[in-house]
Amino acid sequence: MQSRRAFLAGTVMAPAVLRGASSYTWTEVEKILASGNVKGKLTKDDLPTPALLVNLDAFEANVSKMAGYLKSKNRGFRPHGKTHKCPEIAKRLVAAGAVGNCAAKLSEAEVFARAGLSGLLVTTAVVGKYKIERAMKLAAQRPDTIFVVDNAQNLRDLDAAAGAAKVKLNLAVDLLVGGRTGIKAGDPAVALVEGMQGLKNVRFAGIQAYAGQASHVTGFEKRKQVSRDVMATAVETRRMLEKKGIACNWLSGGSTGTYNIDSEIDGVTEIQPGSFMFMDIDYNRIGGADGNAHYGDFRNSLTVMATVVSKPADSTAIVDAGLKAFSTDRAFPPETKDKMPVTYAFGGDEHGKLTLGEGAYAFQVGDKLEFIIPHCDPSVNLYDRIFACRGDQVEAVWAVAARGMSQ
Amino acid sequence: MQSRRAFLAGTVMAPAVLRGASSYTWTEVEKILASGNVKGKLTKDDLPTPALLVNLDAFEANVSKMAGYLKSKNRGFRPHGKTHKCPEIAKRLVAAGAVGNCAAKLSEAEVFARAGLSGLLVTTAVVGKYKIERAMKLAAQRPDTIFVVDNAQNLRDLDAAAGAAKVKLNLAVDLLVGGRTGIKAGDPAVALVEGMQGLKNVRFAGIQAYAGQASHVTGFEKRKQVSRDVMATAVETRRMLEKKGIACNWLSGGSTGTYNIDSEIDGVTEIQPGSFMFMDIDYNRIGGADGNAHYGDFRNSLTVMATVVSKPADSTAIVDAGLKAFSTDRAFPPETKDKMPVTYAFGGDEHGKLTLGEGAYAFQVGDKLEFIIPHCDPSVNLYDRIFACRGDQVEAVWAVAARGMSQ
Repeated sequence: MQSRRAFLAGTVMAPAVLRGASSYTWTEVEKILASGNVKGKLTKDDLPTPALLVNLDAFEANVSKMAGYLKSKNRGFRPHGKTHKCPEIAKRLVAAGAVGNCAAKLSEAEVFARAGLSGLLVTTAVVGKYKIERAMKLAAQRPDTIFVVDNAQNLRDLDAAAGAAKVKLNLAVDLLVGGRTGIKAGDPAVALVEGMQGLKNVRFAGIQAYAGQASHVTGFEKRKQVSRDVMATAVETRRMLEKKGIACNWLSGGSTGTYNIDSEIDGVTEIQPGSFMFMDIDYNRIGGADGNAHYGDFRNSLTVMATVVSKPADSTAIVDAGLKAFSTDRAFPPETKDKMPVTYAFGGDEHGKLTLGEGAYAFQVGDKLEFIIPHCDPSVNLYDRIFACRGDQVEAVWAVAARGMSQ
Repeated sequence: MQSRRAFLAGTVMAPAVLRGASSYTWTEVEKILASGNVKGKLTKDDLPTPALLVNLDAFEANVSKMAGYLKSKNRGFRPHGKTHKCPEIAKRLVAAGAVGNCAAKLSEAEVFARAGLSGLLVTTAVVGKYKIERAMKLAAQRPDTIFVVDNAQNLRDLDAAAGAAKVKLNLAVDLLVGGRTGIKAGDPAVALVEGMQGLKNVRFAGIQAYAGQASHVTGFEKRKQVSRDVMATAVETRRMLEKKGIACNWLSGGSTGTYNIDSEIDGVTEIQPGSFMFMDIDYNRIGGADGNAHYGDFRNSLTVMATVVSKPADSTAIVDAGLKAFSTDRAFPPETKDKMPVTYAFGGDEHGKLTLGEGAYAFQVGDKLEFIIPHCDPSVNLYDRIFACRGDQVEAVWAVAARGMSQ
């Protein structure tokens, strides 16, 4: 972060504003993009905006840090694919030591499986005749896939379908620890798992306990308390099962906000964080274990690059990124990557309205800026590709192949 | 809308909840979907959720009403493609009498052009070397395309590029009437148009005056006042040009909220509404010319269908549609199509949490519901296809081919 004084002295503008254009024609750029072989050929300035960028140095540091931390704590690392929806990233995570990848929905998992990935955990229950049919195909193709269940009828449906498809289904019980899906911890969960024991076509895989609400509690100590309280019910359920002689060797939970909390809890075997690889303003605000209000364990690697398309007044610039370029589910707007004296406000579906502070008036039509994103997951879901950059060089173009796969 | 009493008597559940499944396998459904020939073969219950549906009866009534109204007022009808991003819909609008279609961005217009559409108006200025190159290709391919400009340097760049590409570019001046893009009405706009007169490769097309803020003013009389005030500056600019001997036969503005206001203003020649075809909760709230708080000129044709995937308590049901299934830029949540005693709250990226009122406890895992959308444009932009339905029958699958085309 640069100081305001440095900005006013004119030393900050350079990294964010890419003036001029390369000597290519657009036809040439299109050909390079289509070839997939972009390294050494394209810079950020060659990209049409709005564009979703990842800073590879920051991304790689984030992945390495999370993988290293969880390894040091002897916990499994199964990062959540709902964040990136991108098989290229899922493969890099496995290369960094992940045991596999989570997928929020069946259709997302299908995309990962088609790309050759295994070790999949589908974190939402598979419901309905057609989806169960699809799940059986996925299980046949990738036998180590874990599905979740929180409902006795759904369990019977899955067992029957698995029998008909001649597959053995790995089924975890989804615990209600996050105020959303799942069966109540303790007796109800134990009863559901006991119900599995008599079924021929399912294998009890363990417990999923994802506490979404704990991840975003502001203040580390408070977050720790919330997460420990709710995860205690999951650990207790695991103990109850083991007392009954039901082996339960797997308990998956945690998030970017609680990775260093849940991995200290005895009984939690695996962490499923997602946002850590990109980060966003929302997670920056939850506060770190070091007491800082800014949660800085991971770097902000993800940005949206936009272009000024109109300058209706000296202190106002309109960029080409609006409601369709950023998710809007948080109460705060995007921020410039280089902390410029620029305030972004949504200007409808297609535009953002920048109020330019002193020193930023120099922005002109055609200038480009990068913005840090309020909430990464639903923003990534707006784009078909991520441009992976090292400095201003574009090293790779990654397809967001599971974009829109919410089914 | 059904009464609460009728709902409690159990007569409302039927239309929204589609129990059971057809006799197809998913493999058969996939084949039918891939064939594109779905009519008479699929019902809503065959669709994977979350799914974006359009009620064809309501959609056709909306299109027919808007086209008929504008024809009766002798105004051009150039509906905005940013709402639907769907060439199939753009073609239907032309068939209903539209003079062409608007596109918010160049890449959106390119999709429409590739689908064979002409009469395009690109409503955001085309900025930067590569985009100008692309615009010249579009102009060569569809010579009746109108582009907009609000900046003298951009005007010179466009003229030079048009000269090099040997095309004659139709250029409208984009007026600052909506608090976003554009040049100030009056003298600044006139000066820009005068600057066009000496250029060899551009043809002055007229004035674009889109007042986004006027569209959503609550209360018809207040909205009328706001729109008339701001559109007066556009009409005055037109008069100033004509006084100088510059022909200005085209003035495009208006929206779903002001179609019956702006088409009464002398000098406005064309209306560019978008949301009327789908409608949303946001537009329902602006109030009608009839004095009703509910703006009911057009029917709600667009819904998202979701499935209950968990039932953690009698009064709570979790559906599979969350932040990635609905846009979140409005302060109010989705509502059930049939006005059930059900309150939706976002439950993260992937889920919605329904608080079930008395009488709605009967919802079970696997049941499906349809939701009216808070804001149609950015919600459509989340989906790759729209399922066009007549009653419960799926008549067609329309590709949202310009989804994500915000460049």
